[in-house]
Amino acid sequence: MTQTFDIAVIGATGTVGETLVQILEERDFPLGTLHLLASNESAGSSVNYRGKNLRVREVDAFDFSLVKLAFFAAGPAVTRSFAAKARAAGCAVIDLSGALSAEQVAAVVPEANPQVIQGLSKPAQLVSPSAAAVALAVVLAPLKHLLELERVNVTACMAVSAQGREAVGELARQTAELLNARPLEPRFFDRQIAFNLLAQVGASDSEGHGALERRLVSELREVLGLPSLKISVTCVQVPVFFGDSYTVAVHSRTAVDVAAVNAVLEAADSVELVDAGDYPTPVGDAVAQDVVYVGRVRGGIDEAEQLNLWLTTDNVRKGAALNAVQLAERLIKDLA
Amino acid sequence: MTQTFDIAVIGATGTVGETLVQILEERDFPLGTLHLLASNESAGSSVNYRGKNLRVREVDAFDFSLVKLAFFAAGPAVTRSFAAKARAAGCAVIDLSGALSAEQVAAVVPEANPQVIQGLSKPAQLVSPSAAAVALAVVLAPLKHLLELERVNVTACMAVSAQGREAVGELARQTAELLNARPLEPRFFDRQIAFNLLAQVGASDSEGHGALERRLVSELREVLGLPSLKISVTCVQVPVFFGDSYTVAVHSRTAVDVAAVNAVLEAADSVELVDAGDYPTPVGDAVAQDVVYVGRVRGGIDEAEQLNLWLTTDNVRKGAALNAVQLAERLIKDLA
Repeated sequence: MTQTFDIAVIGATGTVGETLVQILEERDFPLGTLHLLASNESAGSSVNYRGKNLRVREVDAFDFSLVKLAFFAAGPAVTRSFAAKARAAGCAVIDLSGALSAEQVAAVVPEANPQVIQGLSKPAQLVSPSAAAVALAVVLAPLKHLLELERVNVTACMAVSAQGREAVGELARQTAELLNARPLEPRFFDRQIAFNLLAQVGASDSEGHGALERRLVSELREVLGLPSLKISVTCVQVPVFFGDSYTVAVHSRTAVDVAAVNAVLEAADSVELVDAGDYPTPVGDAVAQDVVYVGRVRGGIDEAEQLNLWLTTDNVRKGAALNAVQLAERLIKDLA
Repeated sequence: MTQTFDIAVIGATGTVGETLVQILEERDFPLGTLHLLASNESAGSSVNYRGKNLRVREVDAFDFSLVKLAFFAAGPAVTRSFAAKARAAGCAVIDLSGALSAEQVAAVVPEANPQVIQGLSKPAQLVSPSAAAVALAVVLAPLKHLLELERVNVTACMAVSAQGREAVGELARQTAELLNARPLEPRFFDRQIAFNLLAQVGASDSEGHGALERRLVSELREVLGLPSLKISVTCVQVPVFFGDSYTVAVHSRTAVDVAAVNAVLEAADSVELVDAGDYPTPVGDAVAQDVVYVGRVRGGIDEAEQLNLWLTTDNVRKGAALNAVQLAERLIKDLA
């Protein structure tokens, strides 16, 4: 009989937490008891797992010594309040909230830097990076040995689901109001998101960069093992419900062989390369899939060192929940 | 009494043509007789000018010797069929269709390379460049002497109105169908544009570049007078009705002084700089305005030679119709 593991999911009622529970089921994760936890306001509701409605309980009262591993998929404040307590109780921690990212805990994307997991002190703690870092790492890691990566310019077109369920509702509500010629009242976003683009996600710092933009730069450098890679990024909130997309302009120190890039991407794990002439879209391809779609693979116009790519992936699934479960699958080999 | 000029607008019933007529009225262009023309299928309708409904007539039958200047705002095929005939009749030509762009006719953005107009042989012919080239030229031309521009990476987030009235209707129709949970039937676009991003505008060539992407590169180099500027661009069709937006990552050969960039943009013609911390949006700012809005002005993360910008502008108005009228205002000084 296979060994099973008792696990906690904190933030089980959120978009990422719910998807995480669903992926644990889909991938036949060797689960013993699954503890679903949330902050006060969400506790008491229930989430379906293997046909049963599991009650979501308050994280405050939880005894972390009951579990071997905890996913932190609520907000960063929840991670900051409870992650240390969990580890003190001997529980491994996988953080999806970004909170531990700032504290030099290793960020890992299994397709890029899985070797990091072996060297962790126990109980292990790991960061599942931002959806943008996951998507870019899955695609750039296999290209790292083919190209001499010097600079990456990214425009991240982010779906509203990255901001949670309320943001999804707000896009739908605003759109309906506009189509019915009713006056628009922005609530979740500070202005109109329907049929519009918001060129900033969250507040910007004194130099004008957003926290997500900073986070992408540091996480991507870390996960790719390229600490001096030059990265510029603009995060744009787009009126799309699910699926983040990225335009990526890569500058290599040497000429880019586009055919070789295609061959590497064709063979890469978790990458689905779309034929030249066609291109993937968030709605038509990425949603509910486990891969990062890549299209529009092309060189520069009159510049041999340039490579341009278009990426799209399910930000909630591949960008967050699935990456965290993949990390857990590797961690439990050590826990066994 | 001021001298007046008899003028023809070809494509008067399209989004750009109609806006062009409106701008001629707003700016008190010294118009004598205004001839509104269109291809067979649109002829017979009428367009309002100074409170009168002017009949739109067939371009096929038009005698171009009646006018001093013709705007070609229909499709490229119409320009190819009639522009030479117009010039042969002594009529100056301003092309907004892209047709003459490929034929080495000078492309001009008044804020960037107005000096070109003086040297033209008569009757003059000019290209009013693509909306993307206009927006980028308005912002980069004043920065040309401050920065040593080496490379520009652009993601162009294009509103559906750039594809004309049918595309605007298609976004509205698809959105309503989806909100009402009816099956989606794409017509104008080949797939879902509502709540989605299409990473390609038009067909791509054997190297994977789209015609609009190629056109932006050549027009922007020409208008800025920087033939060896390295430009990479991805055009993305976004579910926005009006207003194109651009993320622009500029790489300079020397360190960028962000405060000096702000000062130059603050003083630049046709640029509206939005305060740090805020940012402009297509719907909230750009629509129906005569300027290019600039926001999110910031340097690179750990890279002194980098400058990042967010631009948004009314693609139909500033990007097309207004630029063409500004060209006409300069041309008539020579015609007087």
